[in-house]
Amino acid sequence: ESYFVGILTVSDTSAKNSEKDLSGPGLKNVFLEANSRSKIPFKVAKTKIVPDEFNDIQDTVKQWCDIEKLDLIITTGGTGFGIRDITPEAIQPILNKFCSGITQAMLSASLQKTPFASLSRPISGIRGNTIILTVPGSPKGARESVEAVINVLPHAIDLIRGGKGEDVHA
Amino acid sequence: ESYFVGILTVSDTSAKNSEKDLSGPGLKNVFLEANSRSKIPFKVAKTKIVPDEFNDIQDTVKQWCDIEKLDLIITTGGTGFGIRDITPEAIQPILNKFCSGITQAMLSASLQKTPFASLSRPISGIRGNTIILTVPGSPKGARESVEAVINVLPHAIDLIRGGKGEDVHA
Amino acid sequence: ESYFVGILTVSDTSAKNSEKDLSGPGLKNVFLEANSRSKIPFKVAKTKIVPDEFNDIQDTVKQWCDIEKLDLIITTGGTGFGIRDITPEAIQPILNKFCSGITQAMLSASLQKTPFASLSRPISGIRGNTIILTVPGSPKGARESVEAVINVLPHAIDLIRGGKGEDVHA
Ligand code: NA
Repeated sequence: ESYFVGILTVSDTSAKNSEKDLSGPGLKNVFLEANSRSKIPFKVAKTKIVPDEFNDIQDTVKQWCDIEKLDLIITTGGTGFGIRDITPEAIQPILNKFCSGITQAMLSASLQKTPFASLSRPISGIRGNTIILTVPGSPKGARESVEAVINVLPHAIDLIRGGKGEDVHA
Repeated sequence: ESYFVGILTVSDTSAKNSEKDLSGPGLKNVFLEANSRSKIPFKVAKTKIVPDEFNDIQDTVKQWCDIEKLDLIITTGGTGFGIRDITPEAIQPILNKFCSGITQAMLSASLQKTPFASLSRPISGIRGNTIILTVPGSPKGARESVEAVINVLPHAIDLIRGGKGEDVHA
Repeated sequence: ESYFVGILTVSDTSAKNSEKDLSGPGLKNVFLEANSRSKIPFKVAKTKIVPDEFNDIQDTVKQWCDIEKLDLIITTGGTGFGIRDITPEAIQPILNKFCSGITQAMLSASLQKTPFASLSRPISGIRGNTIILTVPGSPKGARESVEAVINVLPHAIDLIRGGKGEDVHA
């Protein structure tokens, strides 16, 4: 069965002109590549662009979790230091569980590439049966963050769906 | 004087059949080894198995902190992605302080062994005078997490007990 | 334009006798060095010593953020395991945003020097337009933590002030 993925671009600029959105399509490619290279049955079922607005972010993520029942949501953008960067603050209150290991693994991979990765403020967690990751808005930063964990996400989804997973670590 | 340790196995399976609990006894051995190898006076004063139930986890940990006055509690299990995995969520509200350094050190050590360590969701903190760590349920993951910090825990306990510790880092 | 920095020493001992404060002056030197070596226009505009008291810490930090409009506040001390160590607990409720990347980068750098770095409990975040870091009270630990991120902080401040920063990662 497929793993259903939603990619949410959070950006004032891209919300006005979707051609400006490079990280959303870039992330879609990351999942297509994982599909063709490693036969992981990811299916990007939803993509959307919203401005850096608290309610737009929360409403979309809640709908994709609670109604669309996606397995995985990646937000890209809004994790930096600008006044309008509020993605982690919008996501945090709607999570049921926090995933400290995923957050650390994403940051650790990025910090190995550039010290500027410390200027990302990601969180990750679970709402219902959906895993949610917040990655940077730069196409490079977004790709690196997702690639740091993409190989273990199928197992995480299997566990949420009810697999036992006694063979692994967590 | 001894450092008094409690080991709490959180597992529906082991709660029904204690012979299934491998991580609890494995962790006990980690402390016995530290005792015989490094002369650290750890003493495992309490062990218990509870199911993946919010109240069972909270009640046991609160009793071991507030009544038994243990120095250190290790929970093993319930840190993964299964629907029943709720150990961090049960522990978080009963902590007075969070120990970001211990959480990161445990994850960092585990991530060096396997990328699946990112599927652990540990937290660690302090309640009263007791340090609390949540480690994975797999015997290997549990051991690796504890071994990442076991050599600094005596100093942490000494500080909580009122030592000055001006000679070290934190 | 200058980047305005405040350095707050949190220590019962130093509050009674300011000559005991080694980490505050040590951190001031770190910013002076960055200024002379790398031409980063840091200006240490405020320094103060307070005891390990919740209200003293909060009042000072809030004033430096809300009234003095500093760009960056470094607290040193109170991040350890002593009963009086409450700096992260005092800072956490007055932050608007959390900076997981900065916290991880500081800890990661310190853990590479000594395993005792896991006994620090730092948090970092943003209040209004001010970045706040909590570093250890030991002069060595304080310096290492700040040096881990000092080269990216100017960019963070520029972003908060309204720069676009589309060229970097976060
Ligand atoms: Na790391």
